[in-house]
Amino acid sequence: MAKTVVVGSIAFDAIETPFEKTDKIIGGAGTYICFASAYFSNPHAVAVVGGDFPKEYIAKLQNAGVSVEGIQVKSDEKTFFWSGKYLDNMNQRETLVTELNVLEHFDPIIPDSYQGVEYVILGNLSPVVQRQVIERLKKKPKLIVMDTMNFWMDIMLDELKKTISMVDVITINDDEARQLSGEYSIPVAAQKIMEMGPQYVIIKKGEHGALLFHKKEIFYAPAMPLYSVIDPTGAGDTFAGGFAGYLAQQDKTDFETMKKALVVASAMASFTCEKMGTAGIESLSDEQIEERINAFKTLTAYS
Amino acid sequence: MAKTVVVGSIAFDAIETPFEKTDKIIGGAGTYICFASAYFSNPHAVAVVGGDFPKEYIAKLQNAGVSVEGIQVKSDEKTFFWSGKYLDNMNQRETLVTELNVLEHFDPIIPDSYQGVEYVILGNLSPVVQRQVIERLKKKPKLIVMDTMNFWMDIMLDELKKTISMVDVITINDDEARQLSGEYSIPVAAQKIMEMGPQYVIIKKGEHGALLFHKKEIFYAPAMPLYSVIDPTGAGDTFAGGFAGYLAQQDKTDFETMKKALVVASAMASFTCEKMGTAGIESLSDEQIEERINAFKTLTAYS
Repeated sequence: MAKTVVVGSIAFDAIETPFEKTDKIIGGAGTYICFASAYFSNPHAVAVVGGDFPKEYIAKLQNAGVSVEGIQVKSDEKTFFWSGKYLDNMNQRETLVTELNVLEHFDPIIPDSYQGVEYVILGNLSPVVQRQVIERLKKKPKLIVMDTMNFWMDIMLDELKKTISMVDVITINDDEARQLSGEYSIPVAAQKIMEMGPQYVIIKKGEHGALLFHKKEIFYAPAMPLYSVIDPTGAGDTFAGGFAGYLAQQDKTDFETMKKALVVASAMASFTCEKMGTAGIESLSDEQIEERINAFKTLTAYS
Repeated sequence: MAKTVVVGSIAFDAIETPFEKTDKIIGGAGTYICFASAYFSNPHAVAVVGGDFPKEYIAKLQNAGVSVEGIQVKSDEKTFFWSGKYLDNMNQRETLVTELNVLEHFDPIIPDSYQGVEYVILGNLSPVVQRQVIERLKKKPKLIVMDTMNFWMDIMLDELKKTISMVDVITINDDEARQLSGEYSIPVAAQKIMEMGPQYVIIKKGEHGALLFHKKEIFYAPAMPLYSVIDPTGAGDTFAGGFAGYLAQQDKTDFETMKKALVVASAMASFTCEKMGTAGIESLSDEQIEERINAFKTLTAYS
C-alpha cells in the first residue's frame, strides 16, 4: 500500500435538497477525497482551516486513517464555507454562498513526513495551489491525479493549462471537457486534453457514469442506478479519492488497473450520493464496499 | 429465426444538422426498425404511404429482407412528412414540420401471410393504432415490444396506458419515463412502469446508453462513444429494431438473452448516428456488426 498526498479544501458546507436541509456540516473536496481514499491507502492531507473548525472533525479524519500533519489551522481566520441548493432533478445545483476565507491565501505546506509520496491527488482548488504542491514534492511521484472545474477555466485558464501539463490523470466532467477543449464530441475532447499533457483523461458524467481515455483506448464504467439520491455533493471528489486510493493500494498505474480503479471510484461515489454530506462515505465496512463493487460487475455482465 | 411484425411510419424526413442538410429522404420509425431488424430476422412491415412515395424505396426495404405486403399505398394521399433541426449539441432537436397526411386515418391491415407471427415491434405511433395491431393478430405472439414518446402522453395518456398494459417490453427515454411515472429516480420510474403491465422496461438515454429493468434486476448497456455523430435521427427506432430482431433470431425471451439484445441494439443505433438518415444502417456487413458488438464488450470489460 503506497502513500498518497491529498490536497483539497476541508470546509463547511450547507446543503439544501428537495428533501432535506443541513446547517454547516463538514465538507470540502479534500474531506471527501480523504474519506474515500482512506479505505485503500494512507492519505496525507494538505489543507487549511480556520480557528472556527472543530477539532473533533480533524479527529474524525484521523480515525479514518488520514494523516493530518499537513492541515494548517489559522486560528484568527475563518474556514472556507460553501452553500448550495439542488433543484428538483438533483442534477442541477445553485451556489448560494461562497466564502473563501482561509483559502484566499492558502500556501500549502508539505511536512517532511509526507515527502517521498508516490500517489498525489490534487482536489479541485486553484491550479496555482495545485502546482505549488507538485513543485514542493522533493521526489517525483509515480502518479499525479488532478480534479478541476469550469470555474478555473473561466478565471485562470493559462494557469490551469500549466498545471494540467504536469499531471498524469485529469478528472473532469463532460461539459467542462467540452469547454476546455472546444470540442463537443467527448472522445475528440478527450484526445485534445491528452495533447495538453495527461496520458489519461477521465470524463465524469454524474448519473451516466464515467469514461477513461488513454491513447486510442476507451473504457466505460457506469454509475449505479440509485433508487434514492439524497445528496450528490462531493460525489466527484469521492470518485477521485476512490480512483487514486485504489491505485495506491495496488501500487500499479497501468491501464488495466485503472479500469478497475474507475469501477471502484464509481462504487465509492454511489455511497456518497445515498446520504447527506459525508455521512455516506464516513464509515463503510469492507463487505459493503466489496458488495457494491460486485454489483457493478453484475450491472454490465452478459454472456 | 422467428418471424417479426413491425408497425411504424414509413415516411419522408428532412433533416438539418450543424453539418449538413437533406432534402426529403426516406425515414420514419418503421423504416429504421425494419432495416435494423432485417439483419437478424424477417420483418413484416405494417405501414401506410401516399402515392408520392417512390417505389424504389419500397424495393430497397424488400432487398434488405423486409416483407412489404402490409404496406398500404394510398395513391390519392401524401406520405407522412417530418422535418427537424438539430441544435449545436446534437442532443436537442426542434421539429420544424409535421404533416400527418396518410397517417391521420391509418387503419393497419395485417395480411394473412403475417399471421402466426411471434415477435411484434410496435414503433412509435398512436397507441390506438399500436393496439389495433395487437388485436388483429389471431395468435398471441411470444413477445410484444413497444416504443413510444412524450407526445402520446400529452394528448392521449389513457389510450397509451391501455396499450402499455398489453405489451411485454416498453422502450422509452429517461425524460419520458419520468413523465409517465411521475418519478424522478429512473429505477423507481421503471418499477412504476412495470406495474402498468410490461415485465421489461428499457430506458433509452441516448449518448449515455440504455438500462434494462426486469423485476428487481438491472442491466446497463453503454452507448458507444462516437468520434463523430452525424445524425441521431432514428437511433431510438434502430435500437428497438436491433433489440427485437436479435431476440427473434435467437427465438428467446429470457432476461439473459435480453441483456445481449440490449448490447446489439446499442451497436445498431451507433451505426445510425454515424451517417445521415438511414444511410448508416442500410448496408452493413455481418463483419461490421460483429466487430461493433465486440467493441461494446471491450468498452466495459475489466479484470
